[in-house]
Amino acid sequence: MASSSSQPVYRATTTAPVNIAVIKYWGKRDVTLNLPTNSSLSVTLSQRSLRTLTTASCSANYPTADTLSLNGKPQDIQSSKRTLACLSNLRALRQAIEDADSSLSKLSALPLRIVSENNFPTAAGLASSAAGFAALVRAVANLYQLPQSPRDLSRIARQGSGSACRSLMGGYVAWRTGELADGSDSLAEEVAPASHWPEMRALVLVVSAEKKDVPSTEGMQTTVETSSLFATRAQAVVPERMTAIEEAIQNRDFPRFAEITMRDSNTFHATCLDSWPPIFYMNDVSRAAVRLVHDINRAVGRTVCAYTFDAGPNAVIYYEEKDSALVAGTVKAILGADTEGWDGPFNESVANVTAPGVALDQVDSRILNVLKDGVSRVILTGVGEGPISVKEHLVTETGEAIIH
Amino acid sequence: MASSSSQPVYRATTTAPVNIAVIKYWGKRDVTLNLPTNSSLSVTLSQRSLRTLTTASCSANYPTADTLSLNGKPQDIQSSKRTLACLSNLRALRQAIEDADSSLSKLSALPLRIVSENNFPTAAGLASSAAGFAALVRAVANLYQLPQSPRDLSRIARQGSGSACRSLMGGYVAWRTGELADGSDSLAEEVAPASHWPEMRALVLVVSAEKKDVPSTEGMQTTVETSSLFATRAQAVVPERMTAIEEAIQNRDFPRFAEITMRDSNTFHATCLDSWPPIFYMNDVSRAAVRLVHDINRAVGRTVCAYTFDAGPNAVIYYEEKDSALVAGTVKAILGADTEGWDGPFNESVANVTAPGVALDQVDSRILNVLKDGVSRVILTGVGEGPISVKEHLVTETGEAIIH
Repeated sequence: MASSSSQPVYRATTTAPVNIAVIKYWGKRDVTLNLPTNSSLSVTLSQRSLRTLTTASCSANYPTADTLSLNGKPQDIQSSKRTLACLSNLRALRQAIEDADSSLSKLSALPLRIVSENNFPTAAGLASSAAGFAALVRAVANLYQLPQSPRDLSRIARQGSGSACRSLMGGYVAWRTGELADGSDSLAEEVAPASHWPEMRALVLVVSAEKKDVPSTEGMQTTVETSSLFATRAQAVVPERMTAIEEAIQNRDFPRFAEITMRDSNTFHATCLDSWPPIFYMNDVSRAAVRLVHDINRAVGRTVCAYTFDAGPNAVIYYEEKDSALVAGTVKAILGADTEGWDGPFNESVANVTAPGVALDQVDSRILNVLKDGVSRVILTGVGEGPISVKEHLVTETGEAIIH
Repeated sequence: MASSSSQPVYRATTTAPVNIAVIKYWGKRDVTLNLPTNSSLSVTLSQRSLRTLTTASCSANYPTADTLSLNGKPQDIQSSKRTLACLSNLRALRQAIEDADSSLSKLSALPLRIVSENNFPTAAGLASSAAGFAALVRAVANLYQLPQSPRDLSRIARQGSGSACRSLMGGYVAWRTGELADGSDSLAEEVAPASHWPEMRALVLVVSAEKKDVPSTEGMQTTVETSSLFATRAQAVVPERMTAIEEAIQNRDFPRFAEITMRDSNTFHATCLDSWPPIFYMNDVSRAAVRLVHDINRAVGRTVCAYTFDAGPNAVIYYEEKDSALVAGTVKAILGADTEGWDGPFNESVANVTAPGVALDQVDSRILNVLKDGVSRVILTGVGEGPISVKEHLVTETGEAIIH
C-alpha cells in the first residue's frame, strides 16, 4: 500500500481571477503590511481566459512543514514572509473558531499541502501574483470553513501581494488605502458586480519584452522615495479620480471610465519616469498601442476604447462588447488573424472579422508595423466573477499532489 | 548698372549660438508675451559647432516691406507675429535714440533686409529657433547701434522664441520667469561665463526620428492645461532645482549639476506623458541613451555624464573634458568611428580613441544595438560664447542678399 495512514485528508479547491487596475496601486506607506499610499480600482477579468486553480489540503499524514507547489514547482515557503503572513493569519482565524466550538476538527494544527497552477504562461508578463495569493487565501479559508467575508479576507490577501486583495471579488473592485496604522481598514470592496456592467471587454496585447526593467515591488519604493511628482498623484490626483471613476462605473459611462483609466495609466508611468533612477515600463510598442487607441477614438468620433499599462510593456485595452468590431476588429486586422490568442474565449464577436472596424488609413501609419512586429499574442477577455469553489482538486483523496 | 540708387546700405552681422536647457522651459503663463510658467537654465553651446549667422541691413533703396530670408528661403514676416513683435520693439528703441539725438541717421524709418543661415542641417532636429531669434535681435540691435545690454535685449528675443533669450549670452544662462504681468522682469541673465567652467562638453546623439510628435509650442500648452502634475513641477520642483543647479555651477560640481539635469529632463518628460492626450518625445533609442549614461556612471563609480532631452528624441550628454575617453570614447566605440560627426570641432580628445573608456560588458547589452541602429549622427561640442559680431556679411555693400 502506498499509504499506511488512516488519517483523513481535508481538501478545498478554488479558482481565482486576474485583475487589471484602472486606478493604479503604486507605492506602499507600510512595506511589511503592504499598505498602499493611495486607493486603487480594478476590473476583475474572466476566469474563462485567465485563472489560478489552487487546492489547499491538510492532513496529519503530511510531513510537519507546510508545502506549496506552483505550476509543478515546489516553492520555498519559509523564505517568503508574505506567504507565511497569509498562512499564519488564516490559521489564527481557524484556531479562533476551533476554540469557540470544540466539536470542530483541529485543522489549524495540521500541516498544509497547497498545490496551485495557472492556466496562462508566466511568459505572458501578466501579474500572476494577484490571482495566486487570492487563490491561496480563498482555498485555505474554504478548507478552514472560515466565516469571514471576501472583504475581511482581503486584509489577509493584501499581505501576500497588494493587488491580490482585489482578486477576491468579481466585477469592479476598489482597494481602500485606509487610514489606520495596523492596516485593518485597508480593504478591498466591490464597487459593482460584473453583472452591473457585463459588457466590459479587455484585450491584452502581449508585447515581446526583455526582462522587466525594475520589479514592481522595488520600483514602487524607488518612486515613493525619489519622485518629485509622486506625492501629488497619491494625495491629490488619485482621490479625485477614485470618486469620478466609481461614478462612471455606477452610470456605465464608458467614455468617462475610459478617460480616467487612460489618464491614470499615464500619470502612473509619469511618476515612474520621474523616479531616480528613472523607470521605464512602456516601450515603442506600448506607445504605438496608445496612439492606436487615440486614433480609433478619433476616427469613430467617440471614446470606444481605453488603454492601461501595468509595470510592463503589455497594453490592456478596455472596450464594450458592442464596439468589438471597431476595437478588437481593428486590432485583429492590424496584427493579422494568425496572431496567437484570437481563438480563445470571448472570440465570437471578432471570429468573422475580416476587415478593420476602423479604416486603417485613419490610423497613424507609423504604428502599424510597430504593432505587428511587437505584439506576440493577444488575450481577449472581459469582466468576470471572483473566486469559485470547484471539485477539480489538485490533491488526491490520499493527499498526493496532482501535477499537470 | 545694376543699381541706380545712391542711398547707403547699412549692415551689421552677428553669429548666435544654440543653447540646451538643463532646467527646461515648458509652459507659458502668457502666450502673447511668451512669459514662462517657470524659470529655466541652459548651457550655451560653442559656435564652432553650431551657429546661426545673420545680417541685418536697411536702406532706402529697398522695397518698403521688411524681408527675411532663412537658409535661402524667403520667410513670410507679416504672418509671424513673433518676428513682427521683435522688429517693432527694436525699431522703437532705435526711434528713441534718434529722437534724442538728431545727428543720428533715421534708420528706424528704413526697410529692413535680414538674411540668415544656419551651419547645421534642420534635419538634425536641433531647436534652431533659439539661435535664429537671438541672431535676428542681436543683428538688428547692432545695426541700430542700440545701447541696451544683452539682458535688456533678452526681453525682446523672448518674444520671438522663449528659449532665444538664453542664446544672447554665453556660458551658463538663467531665464528668470519674472513676476510682472507685462513681462518686463522676465529676462535672461548670465549665471556664469563660459570661462568659469570651460571644460563642459556636450555630445548630441541625433536620433533618426519621424516627424516630431507634437510641436513644442502646442505641446507645452497642452501640458499646462491638462497635466495633473504640471503645477507641482512649475511651482515647487523647479524653483528648488534652479537654486541648486546655480550653486552646482558656481562650485563646478559636476555630479550635482548632472543629477539635477537628468532629473529635470525626466520630470519634464513625465509632465508630457501626463498630458492629455499624452505627449511622447523620447523613444526606445532615447531610453537606451538614458540607460547608457546610468551604466557608464555606475561602471566608473562616479557621475561623469548626464543626459537631457528636449522636445524630441535626441539625447544631449554633458560631461567634462577630462572624462572624454570615458564618455565620448565609450559612445564612439558603441556607434562606430564612421558615424557622422566624430570629425568635427572638439574631436581632439576622442580622435584617437579605439577602445571604449568603459568596457562594454559593463553596459546593458540590450542597448548597444538600439543605439548603433538608432543614432544617425553625433555633434561633439561644448560650452561656448554668446553672439559675436562678424564682418562676413550676408548682404553685399549694394544690398544684395548672399545665398550660399
